[in-house]
Amino acid sequence: MAKFIHTMIRVLDEARSVRFYGEAFGLALADRYAFDGFTLVYLRNAENDFEVELTINNGQSEPYSHGAGYGHLAVCVDDIEAEHDRLSKLGLAPTPVKSMQHAERNLATFFFITDPDGYKIEVLKRAGRYT
Amino acid sequence: MAKFIHTMIRVLDEARSVRFYGEAFGLALADRYAFDGFTLVYLRNAENDFEVELTINNGQSEPYSHGAGYGHLAVCVDDIEAEHDRLSKLGLAPTPVKSMQHAERNLATFFFITDPDGYKIEVLKRAGRYT
Repeated sequence: MAKFIHTMIRVLDEARSVRFYGEAFGLALADRYAFDGFTLVYLRNAENDFEVELTINNGQSEPYSHGAGYGHLAVCVDDIEAEHDRLSKLGLAPTPVKSMQHAERNLATFFFITDPDGYKIEVLKRAGRYT
Repeated sequence: MAKFIHTMIRVLDEARSVRFYGEAFGLALADRYAFDGFTLVYLRNAENDFEVELTINNGQSEPYSHGAGYGHLAVCVDDIEAEHDRLSKLGLAPTPVKSMQHAERNLATFFFITDPDGYKIEVLKRAGRYT
């Protein structure tokens, strides 16, 4: 059966993105492959068998555009307030922590941060179905 | 530490997308939450603790746009030729199977298919680093 293994995003500045995903989510460089014209970088941490694949295209200087379709990648964390504080202190400008109700029960507690290329990442409190 | 738990995409037709992700990747409905104005649908299979979150916005009829930044979600499968045949017979129009070399070694064997809203999914042979 098909197993999810990564999501690919195009980024302008390899070092900037590697630093962001490391600081924000503890992702480390798993592999890096340089080709003629582009480089692939795989980032992962020990929490899940799933990677972020960065594509860096040589000669790209225009920021990549974002359509209205793709939404975000999501992670969960144990202590969402502590994580919000930590990311704020790093200057990563998380949105305020919000909760979402469904059928009069708390479904999700979360905030968003935006990576250097404008991709949004949702940070959810590890609770309920978000584990 | 942050754990990847899902990726969110906006889709036009809930039933069409649920059918596609079920047929193509064996994803089943894990949860569904209807809100005023939108519905969230979580799809997963047993291979990974990672879900596709579909957002269906009420009243949306225009196809969602796709920017140049976001690339694709990737899965791996055991038998890529059999999977390519199966998806072809389902009418899902996979691209031809290709291999990519790096440093004179085979790095990846893969094809792409496109979901009903235009999101690309890479299907990789389960081998090497793609497991």
